[in-house]
Amino acid sequence: MPPGRLPGEVFRAPIRWEERNVTAIKGPGGKWMIPPDAKESMDRSKIGLKGPLKTPIAAGHPSMNLLLRKTFDLYANVRPCISIEGYKTPYTDVNLVTIRENTEGEYSGIEHVIVDGVVQSIKLITEEASRRIAEYAFEYARNNQRNSVTAVHKANIMRMSDGLFLRKCREVAENYKDIKFTEMYLDTVCLNMVQDPTQFDVLVMPNLYGDILSDLCAGLIGGLGVTPSGNIGANGVAIFESVHGTAPDIAGLDMANPTALLLSAVMMLRHMGLHDHAHKIQMACFDTIRDKKVLTKDLGGNSKCSEFTAEICRRVQDLE
Amino acid sequence: MPPGRLPGEVFRAPIRWEERNVTAIKGPGGKWMIPPDAKESMDRSKIGLKGPLKTPIAAGHPSMNLLLRKTFDLYANVRPCISIEGYKTPYTDVNLVTIRENTEGEYSGIEHVIVDGVVQSIKLITEEASRRIAEYAFEYARNNQRNSVTAVHKANIMRMSDGLFLRKCREVAENYKDIKFTEMYLDTVCLNMVQDPTQFDVLVMPNLYGDILSDLCAGLIGGLGVTPSGNIGANGVAIFESVHGTAPDIAGLDMANPTALLLSAVMMLRHMGLHDHAHKIQMACFDTIRDKKVLTKDLGGNSKCSEFTAEICRRVQDLE
Ligand SMILES: CC(C)[C@H](C(=O)O)[C@@H](O)C(=O)O
Ligand SMILES: CC(C)[C@H](C(=O)O)[C@@H](O)C(=O)O
Repeated sequence: MPPGRLPGEVFRAPIRWEERNVTAIKGPGGKWMIPPDAKESMDRSKIGLKGPLKTPIAAGHPSMNLLLRKTFDLYANVRPCISIEGYKTPYTDVNLVTIRENTEGEYSGIEHVIVDGVVQSIKLITEEASRRIAEYAFEYARNNQRNSVTAVHKANIMRMSDGLFLRKCREVAENYKDIKFTEMYLDTVCLNMVQDPTQFDVLVMPNLYGDILSDLCAGLIGGLGVTPSGNIGANGVAIFESVHGTAPDIAGLDMANPTALLLSAVMMLRHMGLHDHAHKIQMACFDTIRDKKVLTKDLGGNSKCSEFTAEICRRVQDLE
Repeated sequence: MPPGRLPGEVFRAPIRWEERNVTAIKGPGGKWMIPPDAKESMDRSKIGLKGPLKTPIAAGHPSMNLLLRKTFDLYANVRPCISIEGYKTPYTDVNLVTIRENTEGEYSGIEHVIVDGVVQSIKLITEEASRRIAEYAFEYARNNQRNSVTAVHKANIMRMSDGLFLRKCREVAENYKDIKFTEMYLDTVCLNMVQDPTQFDVLVMPNLYGDILSDLCAGLIGGLGVTPSGNIGANGVAIFESVHGTAPDIAGLDMANPTALLLSAVMMLRHMGLHDHAHKIQMACFDTIRDKKVLTKDLGGNSKCSEFTAEICRRVQDLE
């Protein structure tokens, strides 16, 4: 997007944009942190829309994505995967949401060398975080007219850690009798997912499993170019992002597919209660794809990013 | 298979079968172990063909599959996934092999309660086990006319443990200049796998990732009913098994699909150097499936397990 022409102005969504560079800096104690002005902006506005970030290659530099999730305690990673009409993949009618615990598990960052050549990584599961993500999943299901929640685990192997996660899911499920609750091994979910994804609705799981499953599911509907994502914290705090990388090979060539970031923005609008705006942009985007006339290369067309975006904007205006 | 009519006698493979019940018993120190007569038989013959096992529900009872892998140090779990002509799935031309480290990683079994409501599971990665599985993967590739090995990891998150695994893969790759070596994040592999599995050849990875990916890949070619598996140790020791469960709902109904176990037996014959026998049985099995006339229910037909098996036996005899 050219500077000075931010989406709020084009579509007239009631949003005042602040742009902040979140590239980590070294804080007082030598710890990597989000720059204070970016942190302050997020603390005040509570809501962020984030472009793909490249983690700088510096010794000990944390993943930027992880640092953001941690800094703002964005404990729920929400990735809807819904088949896009007109964009052909081997699957149709995929309509599911992965809800991933976003703060602990295999992402604890705690690792040790025990003796030379022997390393351990710690997977940390807490009652607190497990309950809160389970509650988020059931609330999400209820608020989004979804009927079932599947807890994904390997409690047959990690009996204590995944066992604790699973127990909390079961307990929370007791309070949501309107939502069907099932439990499934991660390997079984992967197997069933590629055989018939339509059997799944809302899936909730520890951190790493969510990383894997959300990418798998994105693949079913066309990849990271079309899948939005939200990182949700307490009290309305949230950062929305596309999950794909920075694609440095096509930087500046006006070739990128903006769909994932646009649909992430749509998720953001919904989160803010701007359902009408969300609905129109999403419709304009899906109509453009279904119509097949103006598409970026990766979507099977030969239009530039700017042309694809202009077509979506035109359709939004028509809808107004 | 009816007792007294074991496969060696039907197909005249030069095999003397010993049947052993491997259900774990409690040993002297209260530790679960494979019964001595089963252990002794395996130690002597070195090679096992295992039917699906149900782990008894008893406090502290280990998974039977894991106990077998551990008892005989079966460090490489090998699962070829090859599209079966005539059995329709959304994918064609899948032809890959997952090679899973089978002894450590997330399956270490070490877990602790730190304080109430906080649990940790230990993922253990050793130089020794990483090198040995990497070597196995490259040897496998070389001996099976395969061109590339992909190491699957999350070393961006588990920098020390997956980092060690990856480093060993890189080192071993140096000794196999004839085999292309690539590294890929597990999430990226899942994404790419469902979009285009034909890009993969041999994949090598830590324990849990292999559990997940092998099921995912099995799904691509038709599920656990048709995918064989081998657990390989040092000095020729190996146990071959189908990966599916015991399916108690259809027990005794002559309905089960024996393909996965049969193809596991074929893997076993190859492991023993009985390539001609392996080839004939495999051909007879695939011909039967391609022909579509005598198929079990799950394969889309309406024949009984015994009819399907008889058809394969008939074709084997024709080939002799
Ligand atoms: C970039 C990486 C650290 C991240 C993760 O592993 O969580 C990404 O794969 C994701 O899913 O957002
Ligand atoms: C049965 C279970 C313990 C096992 C595993 O998790 O390894 C199974 O899923 C497998 O892949 O062989």
